Amino acid sequence: MSSFKQIVELIADDLTAVEAKLTEQTASEYSFVDMAVQHVVEGGGKRLRPILVVLSAKVCGYEGSDAHTLAAVVELIHVASLVHDDVLDEAAIRRGRETLQTKWGNKVAVLVGDYLHARVLSMLVARRADDPAMAILADTTQAMCEGEVIHAYKSGDFDISENEYLKIISFKTGKLIAASCTLGAHLGTTDKQQLEALTTYGQQIGTAFQIVDDVLDFTEDADKLGKNAFGDLREGKLTFPIIYARSVCNDAEKQTLEKVLNPNTDEAEAIAFVESLFQQYGVETHCLKAAQGYANRAKAALAVLPATPARRALEQLADYVVARES
Amino acid sequence: MSSFKQIVELIADDLTAVEAKLTEQTASEYSFVDMAVQHVVEGGGKRLRPILVVLSAKVCGYEGSDAHTLAAVVELIHVASLVHDDVLDEAAIRRGRETLQTKWGNKVAVLVGDYLHARVLSMLVARRADDPAMAILADTTQAMCEGEVIHAYKSGDFDISENEYLKIISFKTGKLIAASCTLGAHLGTTDKQQLEALTTYGQQIGTAFQIVDDVLDFTEDADKLGKNAFGDLREGKLTFPIIYARSVCNDAEKQTLEKVLNPNTDEAEAIAFVESLFQQYGVETHCLKAAQGYANRAKAALAVLPATPARRALEQLADYVVARES
Repeated sequence: MSSFKQIVELIADDLTAVEAKLTEQTASEYSFVDMAVQHVVEGGGKRLRPILVVLSAKVCGYEGSDAHTLAAVVELIHVASLVHDDVLDEAAIRRGRETLQTKWGNKVAVLVGDYLHARVLSMLVARRADDPAMAILADTTQAMCEGEVIHAYKSGDFDISENEYLKIISFKTGKLIAASCTLGAHLGTTDKQQLEALTTYGQQIGTAFQIVDDVLDFTEDADKLGKNAFGDLREGKLTFPIIYARSVCNDAEKQTLEKVLNPNTDEAEAIAFVESLFQQYGVETHCLKAAQGYANRAKAALAVLPATPARRALEQLADYVVARES
Repeated sequence: MSSFKQIVELIADDLTAVEAKLTEQTASEYSFVDMAVQHVVEGGGKRLRPILVVLSAKVCGYEGSDAHTLAAVVELIHVASLVHDDVLDEAAIRRGRETLQTKWGNKVAVLVGDYLHARVLSMLVARRADDPAMAILADTTQAMCEGEVIHAYKSGDFDISENEYLKIISFKTGKLIAASCTLGAHLGTTDKQQLEALTTYGQQIGTAFQIVDDVLDFTEDADKLGKNAFGDLREGKLTFPIIYARSVCNDAEKQTLEKVLNPNTDEAEAIAFVESLFQQYGVETHCLKAAQGYANRAKAALAVLPATPARRALEQLADYVVARES
């Protein structure tokens, strides 16, 4: 059994409860809204963020149902961001399913994303007033938007450095993954060291996760990925592998690279060039090594926590984030 | 001096404070985000919702700065919804200014809308935990999205009834206008009758406001409107005047109406037909009379409140909503 399956098995009952919350908390009196929301929520994915909430709560000694609510909250924020991403990337499929805008048009898709955010607010309001979740998530959603705006704004800008990019992805992806861990931890502990350990863990695997995502866009079959391969490249989006390749290649290659990032270039030609460049400079290996570095720092941060099955699962999850194939 | 100018003058200091809050509360560490947000926030408009918060607070005896924060909150929710509307209507101009997607593309526009929602959440989190604003606004933003999704989904559906449409606009437009009044009122009173009076007032002028908006799309110069006239029609959006016209015209006219709602029809032809139909059946007069009915019910609801300058201003505002020319 893969390590990911083992983790899922360890918290199977919790994950079932999270799925129930997801359905229950997004219900609308309008059946069309219900249908559209269910389409994206069931589209699912790995439920990485809910898993992190549940495990972070457990490793800090909490076992109650509040973890399921917060797990549903972070997943809905994540799904809402994917829905908006798909609109703007004009993606036709996501995880092998038609996207909302393919089925019902852009307008419905943007509004369903907004609706999910509104439901998140309702869910947070319904919780006890003194808990830190709302403030954490207010900061998180703001940072996610800032990261996304800046990434969109910089699209096609060749001079983005690795550090700038790492900051953008820490906002876009890392913040919500870190928040998942922090929120779970808050349920079980007020110990500052433990809270910080889980936040650091989340930040580090968040960065690892995004770097691997960037790599998968170049190396995976479209089938496995459930979306178009080389999608980032064809939108002119600079990602970690491209930024690294650009930093090590020669001037002539740099110029060709700029050319193939233009969506008007012939696609087969663009892909062939990038593949040969990646081969030549060992780009995939470099990126995966970098990702593993983040995963290792994530695992190291867990040292202050009790050595429970939940902690072991978090450690395995950090390695899984790097080793996964889709 | 117009009644609207008189109202604005009565609360000029409050409105200055609201503008300051709007700038201060949307600041980002990224200068590009700042610039994009300022572009839409300064694009302004009448600040109807902030005016309602301030006047509703005053009529209930509240004069403090919390009204400015809540006024900024409702205005940002409103601006965020306009930004998303513009993306999806592919609008090039709004209130005479270029829209975000014209300046920086769709992606930036959708994300700036999301960013504004995130800032709203931050502003609400920073308030005292026991106030009802968050719950009211959670309900409101959810209803806004539902109304918008359903309106988008029903776009081109000819069989929408006047009652269905009135429910959609009470969600899309009415809820936030009503919430503006309710939030202001809560600052000054816990009296149930007063709170309900202001909520009813807001719901009624919200409906009046949307009906007049629908009419203006057909009757106003594009210049005054600051956007393309007949825009709703050309998108196949059924609005109040069209739904009324369809309910009174003959079968042949109904068929032609369906045809001109198709964006592929020649634009001049479509406009000419709709104008003649409106003339023949007195559509504009009928709609404005309906809107005035809502405004009158709004004013009547205020009877339980003390007869102060703030109440007088709210009464004037109800008439202004119907009489305005843009």
